[in-house]
Amino acid sequence: MTQTSARTGYAGAGPVAPATFERLALRPAGPGGVRIDGGFWGHYQVLNRHTTIPHGIRMLEETGSLHNLRLAAGISAGSAADYSMPLFRDSDVYKMLEAIAWERARGRDEASERFFADTVELLRQAQQPDGYLNSYVEVVEHGRRFANPAMGHELYCAGHLLQAAVADVRTAGNHSALADIAGRYADLIAQQLPGSLAGYVPGHPEIESALAEFARATGRPELITTAADLIARRGRATLNWHSFGPAYFQDDVPFEQADAIRGHAVRALYLLAGATDVYTETGRPGLLRAALAQWDDMVSGKIYLTGGVGSRHKDEAFGDPFELPPDRAYCETCAAIASIMWNWRMLLVTGEARFADLIERTLYNGFLSGLGLDGATFFYVNALQARTPVGRRPWYQCACCPPNIMRLLASLGHYVATCTGAGVQIHQFVGGRLGADVPGTGRLELEMTTGYPYEGVLRLRVLGAPGGHAELAVRVPAWAATVGAALNGRRLTSGPGDDHYLRVRRAWAAGDELDVEFPLHIRTIHPDPRIDAVRSCAAFERGPLVYCVEGVDVPGADGLADIWLPRGAEPAERPGMDVAGERVTALSVPGQVGAGRVHAWPYRHGAPRPSDGQLAARELTAVPYYARANRGDTEMRVWIPVSEDRQASGAARR
Amino acid sequence: MTQTSARTGYAGAGPVAPATFERLALRPAGPGGVRIDGGFWGHYQVLNRHTTIPHGIRMLEETGSLHNLRLAAGISAGSAADYSMPLFRDSDVYKMLEAIAWERARGRDEASERFFADTVELLRQAQQPDGYLNSYVEVVEHGRRFANPAMGHELYCAGHLLQAAVADVRTAGNHSALADIAGRYADLIAQQLPGSLAGYVPGHPEIESALAEFARATGRPELITTAADLIARRGRATLNWHSFGPAYFQDDVPFEQADAIRGHAVRALYLLAGATDVYTETGRPGLLRAALAQWDDMVSGKIYLTGGVGSRHKDEAFGDPFELPPDRAYCETCAAIASIMWNWRMLLVTGEARFADLIERTLYNGFLSGLGLDGATFFYVNALQARTPVGRRPWYQCACCPPNIMRLLASLGHYVATCTGAGVQIHQFVGGRLGADVPGTGRLELEMTTGYPYEGVLRLRVLGAPGGHAELAVRVPAWAATVGAALNGRRLTSGPGDDHYLRVRRAWAAGDELDVEFPLHIRTIHPDPRIDAVRSCAAFERGPLVYCVEGVDVPGADGLADIWLPRGAEPAERPGMDVAGERVTALSVPGQVGAGRVHAWPYRHGAPRPSDGQLAARELTAVPYYARANRGDTEMRVWIPVSEDRQASGAARR
Repeated sequence: MTQTSARTGYAGAGPVAPATFERLALRPAGPGGVRIDGGFWGHYQVLNRHTTIPHGIRMLEETGSLHNLRLAAGISAGSAADYSMPLFRDSDVYKMLEAIAWERARGRDEASERFFADTVELLRQAQQPDGYLNSYVEVVEHGRRFANPAMGHELYCAGHLLQAAVADVRTAGNHSALADIAGRYADLIAQQLPGSLAGYVPGHPEIESALAEFARATGRPELITTAADLIARRGRATLNWHSFGPAYFQDDVPFEQADAIRGHAVRALYLLAGATDVYTETGRPGLLRAALAQWDDMVSGKIYLTGGVGSRHKDEAFGDPFELPPDRAYCETCAAIASIMWNWRMLLVTGEARFADLIERTLYNGFLSGLGLDGATFFYVNALQARTPVGRRPWYQCACCPPNIMRLLASLGHYVATCTGAGVQIHQFVGGRLGADVPGTGRLELEMTTGYPYEGVLRLRVLGAPGGHAELAVRVPAWAATVGAALNGRRLTSGPGDDHYLRVRRAWAAGDELDVEFPLHIRTIHPDPRIDAVRSCAAFERGPLVYCVEGVDVPGADGLADIWLPRGAEPAERPGMDVAGERVTALSVPGQVGAGRVHAWPYRHGAPRPSDGQLAARELTAVPYYARANRGDTEMRVWIPVSEDRQASGAARR
Repeated sequence: MTQTSARTGYAGAGPVAPATFERLALRPAGPGGVRIDGGFWGHYQVLNRHTTIPHGIRMLEETGSLHNLRLAAGISAGSAADYSMPLFRDSDVYKMLEAIAWERARGRDEASERFFADTVELLRQAQQPDGYLNSYVEVVEHGRRFANPAMGHELYCAGHLLQAAVADVRTAGNHSALADIAGRYADLIAQQLPGSLAGYVPGHPEIESALAEFARATGRPELITTAADLIARRGRATLNWHSFGPAYFQDDVPFEQADAIRGHAVRALYLLAGATDVYTETGRPGLLRAALAQWDDMVSGKIYLTGGVGSRHKDEAFGDPFELPPDRAYCETCAAIASIMWNWRMLLVTGEARFADLIERTLYNGFLSGLGLDGATFFYVNALQARTPVGRRPWYQCACCPPNIMRLLASLGHYVATCTGAGVQIHQFVGGRLGADVPGTGRLELEMTTGYPYEGVLRLRVLGAPGGHAELAVRVPAWAATVGAALNGRRLTSGPGDDHYLRVRRAWAAGDELDVEFPLHIRTIHPDPRIDAVRSCAAFERGPLVYCVEGVDVPGADGLADIWLPRGAEPAERPGMDVAGERVTALSVPGQVGAGRVHAWPYRHGAPRPSDGQLAARELTAVPYYARANRGDTEMRVWIPVSEDRQASGAARR
């Protein structure tokens, strides 16, 4: 860490700003980085600022999260009985502070800043003299600290405090009082973990990447050692809770020996993010090896089409390979966010497009599905099939997801582009401005314009260029069958490299325009035949979007249990469909609808016979998955059974 | 109840002995009834007597269930910290007592009787002066009774106490001290429910059928009113617990208005059994109407091929229609038992074969799977697919299932036959003796011989007959395509009636022999195409048995994720296969095996292509589902994908 420890503060950096570059293929584009402005994500950032964050502040007050801290601070009188569970509510407050801090990139908001300052003061009062800070332990457990490693969530909450402080350090523009609070707690943790907490394994990872980033943001490399220690101590099966064995906690196998991604999905992914951070700073090869193996395991049979992960409700966990039920998919919004966070770190380390591809898929589908179009309703679970009508909620008792959405949206610009000595790489397509200091060359300033995800053109206009040659690299999405590009109106003949980046190297000048186009076609997607739960089904994608059919668009059918797709059906685009005020490109799908539910024993002896003749042709409408459940509670399905494979249901007595 | 209240005691009766006959199509064959002797179930009853029950007695001691009662009785010193959770362990003790009582039909066992007497004495000492009895409340809750309606399980435990007392009354042959204890508790319950517990709804039904049967066994018709009241008070959404809303408790809709079977499966089925009992005694038509509607709902899309029910792990609950994942099937053994108990009551009321069919299916598959061939290992969850190796356990911390298996096996003879004024009806096929008092005719004594479930012949030999004409009726299973019968060696030409019973009416004489044969063929079963999780799969049945493929029989394959069945594959019988010492008729299935797991994005754009060419032919062995997991931990699947519908998996970048 010596080469970069002078970067203390790293003002203007985003959530991930490595201090050591030698193991990075790519560096974040900051400081300054990308400012999203207009377009698809610009809309969401405005919504986040004006609706979602204010709504969240209200909900923290209404649901008792702030009251908990006031009890701990001694500002409000009350006892354990007045504490609002669950016990990790402090973390929701911290995530909200983090969101507000990142949101400062779009200008300070008076009400948000007032909330921020008041909350920091509240935290100051709730913090113990030695730096410890956790309202649940202080109010309910009479100060009995670290007594419940498996489910106590103390270092999880501490991690979110550190991440909020990182955001504050990088955006406050002056001294961060929050970082003082977080720093005192970090010092306590770093001091006690090798000593009085020598056997302690935190049940919910999160602290690892938080310590690493806090180390980077505040120039305390010793905290990297603490994070590394926390990863190294996992895997000795000390954690257990009811029927949730050590695998739930990623405590069954030492991290560096684990090839399988397993257990509670959010825990697994936060741990992987932290391990990737520690690898970046320390170069310990086993960490990267295990991370790559677990990534392979995840994307080859433990992931949904939406990028969502977590197949099981009971333990919110990854399932076995190919255990991917669409109806009981858990796909927690937080898991999508954690996946994006981890994949960004993997992209920085490897420079490989597959990580940016997965970020794109997750961002537009499994993540964005978690936020209603109104900006003030949410999904915690993002299943791919709703057999009975489901609807969004304004908040959750376990409210980890909503403020997590807010912090990701507020910091989204940081996940768009990177730079190297060669130039700039654009991984996600947004409208806005990019400014990157190309090491050894100079500053490149670009304006980015795109109708993505509904249109496939990205226009890059150079606003300012360094003197020498620099390369502009644009990721070609895995879904794109072809790509076209034009420089200042002249078609380029060279295609993308094997690494799936289209690269143009030249001495750029202000006014240069590079247009890149990925033609958008509707794609019919078939699942691996070993995914039992969606065998003989098809789904639709267009550009980065996964589509779904909603019950509200199939009136008169018996739910969506009996809709079908003839083999080879070709959907048509339906641009400009209004979904709760959002203009989307929907799909018109020539489908079929069955007669609905028959009350008969559902298992039949005898040769199956196709029964398409009993199906009535019906045009089905498919809307982008992220836009689901915004027109009242309704059924939904992403995967539609192919009728050619339909077998007769008998009316046999069992 | 006036006509029959003189039947107090009802010695020799089984678990269900209605006191009112006017709404019964069929009456239980008791007293005396059926004594199983030899054959398939005879073997299991011997195993139960000599292995399972003694094992259970040991486990009750080792795991603290008896210690809990000793704490309550003040025999052992200790406090709440010494109590072994979960809080409903008393019920496991009661179910064991019930099993021992029913087992007396095969002769008293000295060790079991000693345990029985000691435990009754322990209960006497633990019982409070006013009749209340619950070790958890007495030891841990300092006597704070009925404070946790949703999850406290107090009346659930009380119900199992009453059922044990019923068994004791009917088999003890003398005064039942257990019935005294149970009676005092029942009096307290009956007195307090309309008064101090006027708003109380018990979170786990069981007390309803227990009160009804205790009323029948002890001649206290007022307890039927109490049971009716408990059913009537459900449905006002007073029960709730964490994320388990009122539907989990069948408390969302009043019982008589509910057409859907829903919520926690064991709760739902015990409640339905109780409601059917109350209908039988009171004739309240709404109870039967709702029970029939919920039965239809269950068997048309909320039941597994094995007869198992409960699609969800998280809340051990019925799912939505057609939500029937084989891998995450819950299919708790207790739910199978509760289903058998309820279906028996429905059979008595309606006389319809469909209920006996479902008992058969559940008994041989979803129920029996819960017990290891060694008689001392168990499954709590009876999934239809194990993607990773699973194994049986000697006991469970939540040990509701093992003693439930024991009481059902010990009382199984009572579920075999019924009688009416016309004669005797045989619903299940066992080796043994049947004695039935045909009302108005006289006593019919039969010897029954069968190789069921592996052979399809049932031989009935008359040992003693009444003077007049009587009808022998034999259920023709729903799966039987044909049935043949011979009387004293002469083939009968008449077939079964529309009601699926083969009936022979005559003046029977000792020595008469009636042979009934259901030819056994291997049946290929296809699921309703709306059951997403097993679409394009097939399973195999033979006679009443469902089959499965186990990983241990497919060496070298990558688990069972990549085994396939060509369309139209014809399995062959493989009689006499040794499965852990059990001789079974296995199946030899001409299947296919794929190359195993490829690490690639599992969703592919483009037309699906059949890839049978990549599959290698492989003979697969299928064994009866009940015999699974007796040869070490292994993967398993009931449903095998049909390769014709197989689609290519791509190696595309996502």
